[in-house]
Amino acid sequence: MYEGALQDLIDEFGRLPGIGPKSAQRMALHVLDTEAEDVDRLLEAIKAVRKRVKHCMICGNLTEEETCTICRDERRDPTVICVVQEPKDIQAIEGSRVFTGQYHVLGGVIDPIRGIGPHQLRIRELLARLHNNQIREVIVATNPNVEGEATATYLARTLEGIGVPTSRLAMGLPMGGDLEYADSITLGRALEGRRTM
Amino acid sequence: MYEGALQDLIDEFGRLPGIGPKSAQRMALHVLDTEAEDVDRLLEAIKAVRKRVKHCMICGNLTEEETCTICRDERRDPTVICVVQEPKDIQAIEGSRVFTGQYHVLGGVIDPIRGIGPHQLRIRELLARLHNNQIREVIVATNPNVEGEATATYLARTLEGIGVPTSRLAMGLPMGGDLEYADSITLGRALEGRRTM
Repeated sequence: MYEGALQDLIDEFGRLPGIGPKSAQRMALHVLDTEAEDVDRLLEAIKAVRKRVKHCMICGNLTEEETCTICRDERRDPTVICVVQEPKDIQAIEGSRVFTGQYHVLGGVIDPIRGIGPHQLRIRELLARLHNNQIREVIVATNPNVEGEATATYLARTLEGIGVPTSRLAMGLPMGGDLEYADSITLGRALEGRRTM
Repeated sequence: MYEGALQDLIDEFGRLPGIGPKSAQRMALHVLDTEAEDVDRLLEAIKAVRKRVKHCMICGNLTEEETCTICRDERRDPTVICVVQEPKDIQAIEGSRVFTGQYHVLGGVIDPIRGIGPHQLRIRELLARLHNNQIREVIVATNPNVEGEATATYLARTLEGIGVPTSRLAMGLPMGGDLEYADSITLGRALEGRRTM
């Protein structure tokens, strides 16, 4: 244990997600040792993020403008919407370079245990987009777990009612994976979703 | 890649030691999402560390006073000095609860490749302490690698000249270790340093 201000900073860094006590200590000692301008840059970057970054008024992605770069990009197909839980999922899907449509961020998933129902999510905004625009397909890309599946099922039923076709990301073996180590549910889904060659 | 201020903050977090791109992203998104008071506490903690923490004028440890808590503690034996590379090594040794003497921080090790010689370290301050006080023993606790060993040897020779006995931390098998996986140098040192039972 250090004393005073140094321990305070270690505690603060330790509150950040994924940062254990040893990492927090290394980070705090670095802040103490590094050049003053490095520290100023870090302080300014933290303040700037809080001040400038907000949610895209169309899709809910993070942006510094009214709308995000993806919604503003005229080369993106506006008739296909990929529904994700959080803005960081957009980054993951963009990394695959396969999807060329637009996004919609729910801001979470249906999770009765935590008291999160459909009304706490940006589903009303999604329905408004579907109502006002010609949409060919909604791809639901919530996480492949119980809450994500439940949310996907809820969305599919809701959108069925207004005649918009809904799809779900394929489940199966991850690239570089090993049959021997795949869990039985994943393997079952891979079999069900098999494709002719 | 995010845009603007958010990516700037991810980059700044990524410059901290031991923080990879994924961790930096999680931290930045947390800063964006969390309560304003959490962010203020983090900002204040960073500023406070830079403003308040300095080096103990006796041993070089980190402190907010003129001297550190260990140098001020009258129960510590002032006739035994443990020489370490960095303040964080003091934390590690204190964790063992075995050492009851005082410390001296070198601020590094002799490392000709990086142009660090004895004069860049706090060796002159160590000699002054030995000159002004009755010291029974100096324990050299530099890291067990080439530079640490070279620095320990240099210190032992220098202190031999002024008649102060010098010792070095024992080398051997780590607790919970496995003979099969011990490297040959460590095993050799463990054999050389064997103790009668």
